Amino acid sequence: MPQNALYAQSGGVTAVINASAWGVIEAVRAHPAHFGKIYAARDGILGVLREEIIDLDQEDPLTLAALRHTPGGAFGSCRFDLGDPDQDPEQYERLVEVFRAHDIGTFFYNGGGGSMDTALKIARMGDRMGFPIKAIGVPKTIDNDLAVTDSSPGFGSAAKFIATVVREASLDVESMHTSSTKVFVLEVMGRHAGWLAAAAALAQEFDGQPPMLILFAETLFDQDDFLEHLNRTIERHGYCVVVVSEGLKNPDGTLFSVAQSHDVYAYTQLGGAAPRLAELIREQTGHKLHWAVVDYIQRSARHIASKVDVEQAYACGRAAVEGVVAGEDAFMPIIRRDSNDPYRWSIGFTPLETVADVEQGMPREYITPDGYGITQAARDYLRPLIQGEDAPPFDQGLPCYPRIRGELLPKRCPPFEVKTD
Amino acid sequence: MPQNALYAQSGGVTAVINASAWGVIEAVRAHPAHFGKIYAARDGILGVLREEIIDLDQEDPLTLAALRHTPGGAFGSCRFDLGDPDQDPEQYERLVEVFRAHDIGTFFYNGGGGSMDTALKIARMGDRMGFPIKAIGVPKTIDNDLAVTDSSPGFGSAAKFIATVVREASLDVESMHTSSTKVFVLEVMGRHAGWLAAAAALAQEFDGQPPMLILFAETLFDQDDFLEHLNRTIERHGYCVVVVSEGLKNPDGTLFSVAQSHDVYAYTQLGGAAPRLAELIREQTGHKLHWAVVDYIQRSARHIASKVDVEQAYACGRAAVEGVVAGEDAFMPIIRRDSNDPYRWSIGFTPLETVADVEQGMPREYITPDGYGITQAARDYLRPLIQGEDAPPFDQGLPCYPRIRGELLPKRCPPFEVKTD
Repeated sequence: MPQNALYAQSGGVTAVINASAWGVIEAVRAHPAHFGKIYAARDGILGVLREEIIDLDQEDPLTLAALRHTPGGAFGSCRFDLGDPDQDPEQYERLVEVFRAHDIGTFFYNGGGGSMDTALKIARMGDRMGFPIKAIGVPKTIDNDLAVTDSSPGFGSAAKFIATVVREASLDVESMHTSSTKVFVLEVMGRHAGWLAAAAALAQEFDGQPPMLILFAETLFDQDDFLEHLNRTIERHGYCVVVVSEGLKNPDGTLFSVAQSHDVYAYTQLGGAAPRLAELIREQTGHKLHWAVVDYIQRSARHIASKVDVEQAYACGRAAVEGVVAGEDAFMPIIRRDSNDPYRWSIGFTPLETVADVEQGMPREYITPDGYGITQAARDYLRPLIQGEDAPPFDQGLPCYPRIRGELLPKRCPPFEVKTD
Repeated sequence: MPQNALYAQSGGVTAVINASAWGVIEAVRAHPAHFGKIYAARDGILGVLREEIIDLDQEDPLTLAALRHTPGGAFGSCRFDLGDPDQDPEQYERLVEVFRAHDIGTFFYNGGGGSMDTALKIARMGDRMGFPIKAIGVPKTIDNDLAVTDSSPGFGSAAKFIATVVREASLDVESMHTSSTKVFVLEVMGRHAGWLAAAAALAQEFDGQPPMLILFAETLFDQDDFLEHLNRTIERHGYCVVVVSEGLKNPDGTLFSVAQSHDVYAYTQLGGAAPRLAELIREQTGHKLHWAVVDYIQRSARHIASKVDVEQAYACGRAAVEGVVAGEDAFMPIIRRDSNDPYRWSIGFTPLETVADVEQGMPREYITPDGYGITQAARDYLRPLIQGEDAPPFDQGLPCYPRIRGELLPKRCPPFEVKTD
């Protein structure tokens, strides 16, 4: 009997991570000679440590197929890193205990760079612990900061949502600007890389509108220079859209969104780059403004997912399985850009070592010399990733996202306490 | 020769106000015996006072037809109220001067309760000034607070967007809650009425998820009671979605979003009910949380507009014209709910007097006794308004929203300065 396969989700989830899950599930089932059952761990690696394992054979097949269009992490995700094998051997002993108890031969971990490090640790654990297990990464991150791969599943859909709502909200601001709001500030995610902020500029592709200034995570915020650009834009166009990365930095490299402790106001203000920037603009220019923070909404907006992104997420899930069938181990599927116009892509593999805990920033040459926009090269890179629509089914006016039952396998191992601090 | 018609947009714009514009334009052109040309004022009544009038015959017919699926106010809107006719007679003299110069016989004003007051003043002005003009209101507001009409065009689409993103973001929070975020706070619009916050509860229609607490604009915020409900929800479900109206009130009736001036911190914090609430929850419970503010995005989200809303907005525009053809004056089309299940609606008329400067709040019986949810009656009222999808055309991965050229008619009147303070 072939050994079973276990799939788990890790880190911040996306609009399409479940499409990867479905790709893995479908492909495992397509290879009964290589795999026994397909299980899913609840809440990522935590579910393995806790022996919380879902038997997907117990789920409604229609619900599983609906994973392709359901946002969030259907099996639960986690923010948890495995310790160093020398420092925390008991974690690894526990993993082997659980893998052995449920005859798991392959582990698929769907996440970003940090999760690839977890997958790598598990891949390396096998020999050491006398329980060989294949560990495969499946790429996912809205931050688009995974190395080697041309883009990361999850990013394209978040980018499409951001570009769409920027185009729409800009029309709103433009309508109001002569007697009301002149500045609209939108905060998007991206602690370290400005990819999502850059995607906002795609809103300009149709007719060069709206006038926009982008403050990237890569930028050290120069207040005077920014206000000068803002005032000049408003003079010329009457209004301005400002897109700010949550990761915008102060000149000293600290996060802009966290107010400095102040001699007079001995308190720390809650983060939020947009409200802080809005306050600054209002104080310094007096312009009427509105601001928005899309937060989780941008990474779960499956209703406006990019078709390219959905297909790539699904393909990465399938390829992870097919790589195992072909005899590979300790790899992550990557997306290759075979041609840009027309956009053609294919799937390749990269060793987990090349992506584990590596962060791939946005190239400096993607930012215009003034620091507030993106170059044509950036547009050429980004545009293909948001192409195509892939609407979920709607019922009663809303997208229909079935929830898995998630019944756990009976436990076979003793309890184990995970320290999550 | 019949006199010309003039259309203008007023107040905060919506995802479907341009569908009403297209309804007016198409219907006026369908009645050449009753109307000459159809014009649009730039930036609402301000454009009339400034004699900034767009000849729609100069626009590309395809661009005009695309108004049906384009958000924002295509002709520009304004926040401006006409003065009292006795105090500001020169404003009314100016209106007559411009109407006369361009032979305007009918004025259509597309807005909310305040704009209906402007329309009413213009309707009454005619006799007084010796220049009879028909003034017709066309309803619009995402706040759903217009009187007499069963619902307001613009509300259904904003409600559909909110319910959709709440459903999606909730799946995200649910995925993360065991090791990360347990509370997601979303701020929606609504200074005086909690209609938009109530719409978030439609996200629960599919399977009773997610666990949610709503803080309505009608609510006086009871911090202890709220935190108790929050903790209980998290104990039971592991996480909680909190939806807060921007108009949430402190126990003393002041706005929650504006921090009270403080003895120590002699400053006023910028508004934002969500970040304030997030700070409070973090301080008092220690739960990890995320927050979002959708602001203009919720009222311009044409990509996920309600089909019912689009059709009603368009029908109200057409009906405004058809009422004039039938001999009516000084009225506003209203939406009547003829049956709830199945939902059937028709268009009626109401005199401007009945809607001018009237605000229709949410009935108290739509809020559950504990104050944090909506009743079945509210669900039955809200559900039909978000039904159906009406996606705009997409190009290059993004919705395609053509912009009108907006070339102004040559001026025939002397300049006039409008005091907008």
